[in-house]
Amino acid sequence: MSAATDRPMRLGLFLQGAGHHVAGWRHPEAQFGGENLKLIQGIARTAEEGHFDLLFLADGLTSSADAHPSFVARIEPIALLSALAMGTKHLGLAATMSTTYTEPFHIARAFASLDHLSGGRAAWNAVTTSYARSSANFSRGDHPSHDDRYAIAEECIDVVRGLWDSFADDAFVKDKARGVYVEPDRVHTLNHEGRYFSVKGPLNASRPPQGHPIIIQAGSSLPGQRLAARTSEIVFTAQQTLVEGKAFRDGLRGFAVEAGRNPDHVMVLPGVCPVIGGTEAEAKALYAQLQGGIDPAAAILLLNDRLGHDVSGYDLDGPLPNLPESDQLQSRARLLTDLARRENLTLRELYYLVAGARGHRIVWGTPEQVADALEEWFVGGGSDGFNIMPPFFPTQFERFVGDVVPILRKRGLVRGEYVGNTLRENLGLPRPANQFFPD
Amino acid sequence: MSAATDRPMRLGLFLQGAGHHVAGWRHPEAQFGGENLKLIQGIARTAEEGHFDLLFLADGLTSSADAHPSFVARIEPIALLSALAMGTKHLGLAATMSTTYTEPFHIARAFASLDHLSGGRAAWNAVTTSYARSSANFSRGDHPSHDDRYAIAEECIDVVRGLWDSFADDAFVKDKARGVYVEPDRVHTLNHEGRYFSVKGPLNASRPPQGHPIIIQAGSSLPGQRLAARTSEIVFTAQQTLVEGKAFRDGLRGFAVEAGRNPDHVMVLPGVCPVIGGTEAEAKALYAQLQGGIDPAAAILLLNDRLGHDVSGYDLDGPLPNLPESDQLQSRARLLTDLARRENLTLRELYYLVAGARGHRIVWGTPEQVADALEEWFVGGGSDGFNIMPPFFPTQFERFVGDVVPILRKRGLVRGEYVGNTLRENLGLPRPANQFFPD
Ligand SMILES: Cc1cc2nc3c(=O)[nH]c(=O)nc-3n(C[C@H](O)[C@H](O)[C@H](O)COP(=O)(O)O)c2cc1C
Ligand SMILES: Cc1cc2nc3c(=O)[nH]c(=O)nc-3n(C[C@H](O)[C@H](O)[C@H](O)COP(=O)(O)O)c2cc1C
Repeated sequence: MSAATDRPMRLGLFLQGAGHHVAGWRHPEAQFGGENLKLIQGIARTAEEGHFDLLFLADGLTSSADAHPSFVARIEPIALLSALAMGTKHLGLAATMSTTYTEPFHIARAFASLDHLSGGRAAWNAVTTSYARSSANFSRGDHPSHDDRYAIAEECIDVVRGLWDSFADDAFVKDKARGVYVEPDRVHTLNHEGRYFSVKGPLNASRPPQGHPIIIQAGSSLPGQRLAARTSEIVFTAQQTLVEGKAFRDGLRGFAVEAGRNPDHVMVLPGVCPVIGGTEAEAKALYAQLQGGIDPAAAILLLNDRLGHDVSGYDLDGPLPNLPESDQLQSRARLLTDLARRENLTLRELYYLVAGARGHRIVWGTPEQVADALEEWFVGGGSDGFNIMPPFFPTQFERFVGDVVPILRKRGLVRGEYVGNTLRENLGLPRPANQFFPD
Repeated sequence: MSAATDRPMRLGLFLQGAGHHVAGWRHPEAQFGGENLKLIQGIARTAEEGHFDLLFLADGLTSSADAHPSFVARIEPIALLSALAMGTKHLGLAATMSTTYTEPFHIARAFASLDHLSGGRAAWNAVTTSYARSSANFSRGDHPSHDDRYAIAEECIDVVRGLWDSFADDAFVKDKARGVYVEPDRVHTLNHEGRYFSVKGPLNASRPPQGHPIIIQAGSSLPGQRLAARTSEIVFTAQQTLVEGKAFRDGLRGFAVEAGRNPDHVMVLPGVCPVIGGTEAEAKALYAQLQGGIDPAAAILLLNDRLGHDVSGYDLDGPLPNLPESDQLQSRARLLTDLARRENLTLRELYYLVAGARGHRIVWGTPEQVADALEEWFVGGGSDGFNIMPPFFPTQFERFVGDVVPILRKRGLVRGEYVGNTLRENLGLPRPANQFFPD
């Protein structure tokens, strides 16, 4: 690594069917990846050529045709990553699964399975599901409140980790002569009886190759940060400025220390949408073209979702109105509110900005300029790397890997090879001991 | 096809980690497939070389270390089949998922995803989950009764099929110029409000390539048969005699006609465990060797599970006691009871027989003799094909494909090629119209 830093910049690819910019899919070069396996396989190979740490799939439990084309239809993440595991060797495979709408037994199995299939490359983005409309697909009454969702998540993650530890690493002796397939005293029955879950166990999966798949958290409210500090190895965020980013990361590292963990074992990866051109003018024109493709009706829906309030009745050329705190996405809403106040944005300006990358930072410029922007944040202590969100696929991502990554490598910021076999090894994280069989 | 029949014999491979015979894994040639991707990939390729219609994965939601090594640890079926879809081209991919313990929204997504990933080769074995102990892993109170489980299944399958029809086949116009990704009037919101489920929809998946993935049913009680006749294309069974098999198939076809369906669109595939030797003596010795490897303690647990009652207190060398009807697996229990009475089996004889292939028919002999046994059932109207359950993997299955299939082909019983692109096409089944967009 360079003198600037003793740790490599981590890179995730946030893969999203129709690209991240809400109008990205309309670009002539854009292809549609939501259910297009061939395209996605090519993108995964590109990510691996760029030595990305992981490929990340977001997920939602509703079809939102009106908000963003990427959310209308998508292959279920575990299924898709199981398929992608077949054509890749080193790339980490991160899937989103909701702690609010999925049974911990199903979650534990899904990620244990992906970890087995991929030889130890699975990661779970544990989300609480912000959108209340999700509850309408699940027959179980109302969407729980923000606080309840996090209380459920805390317990759910503990149950999942307990289930991953159902078997000692050496439990499956498969001794043909003795007729012993699994050693009975190397199996742990969880017998969890908690506030939200009763789960007996054991899981019907041997211990995953990584011990525990990597856990990712993507909520930035205080309960979200506390959860991440206690349980997660990667945190996705959406800060807009280095000052915010650094404050967030410093705070999170502090919480991790309080939780008795090594703060270097919690990596913060803000989302960044790089709009890349051969020249600055080209990049600027591309950004303008993307913004010009935005459908104002869709943009306002996206903004409503992010704010957790309907602002469509307000004057579009006036300032953002004062809104009560949202129960949906507290931290994301606050970041947007801060941004609007700081930059004196009209509602129209704000929603055009949000529509771009759904509140994530957009960086447009030449490969050199994009590399500069990433380096500044990274070296400035605002992140441990980035979750790269190309405005559309595949060409913008190919440019990132072909043109930006080599610059980062020349500067000694990213590593030029995979250093381990599992995702955990590549990230320099220890394999957790089995809590029930610590030997 | 031969003069004997105008329809091809359908072949499914029932893949199970450690083989189907409870002691199969102890055979020197046996390899362990539960979480061994390389082995399973090889088996899938063998099945495709043999032009099998489908590869089938059973599933359970508990880890039963004591009953059968295949049930201790296994990769979640959708994840595994998504991976296998990558190395195969024609083979149907059938996964089991429980209507009692899985949300219909998750089920619909999972199979739509597999269908997209595999280019139209997905099948869902819709089971109600017989074992009451499963409820202990799911925080929702007691295991529902047999009748309730089937009432839930009826509604669940309807919801799943409704969700698969969320989008017209032509809904995703992806018109860059107009900025229309999906035609709003080609999306159907299900708004299901039933006795067990409230599911709004739409599903976040475009319509599967097959329209609807193939539905399989594996319960043989009366409610199970009614459900199959109304909703399913394939029925797995476990009859022991041709008379029973024919009666079951005739009955089911009758129910299908009552339900307004073409009876040829419901195919009955009994499970068969072929124990194959080069000579009759070799096959007999192999069968004896397998039976000799049975652990009596495990065998009695298996029998208890199948009967839904604990018989371990009874005299092992006496007859099967009279038992009240079980709530777990009514039809399977009855088949076993009938078998024991018909053949005057002692309890010990019965449990050794059940342990073999868990109540499925075992056929041992030369390839010629195995082919004869299959032909007799098929031509005699006892089935539309078979679900092949090798006692262990991979060599016994390789013998089936290498030695038995060519004989069946020579006799004109099986087809020697895949006739379509999707599983549905290969099975000669029509693609269902969209119930909400019938045009
Ligand atoms: C990069 C990133 C990705 C996210 N991905 C998902 C996702 O795929 N599905 C989801 O339901 N929520 C997702 N979220 C939302 C968060 O998990 C969380 O629910 C939301 O931010 C509200 O929690 P908070 O109030 O703690 O911020 C994501 C957030 C970020 C920053
Ligand atoms: C070939 C075959 C495979 C089956 N596979 C499963 C399975 O994978 N998981 C499961 O829970 N039940 C499975 N079953 C059980 C049935 O789905 C059903 O729950 C059981 O037979 C009880 O229903 P019944 O009383 O209608 O027969 C299978 C049955 C057969 C015949």
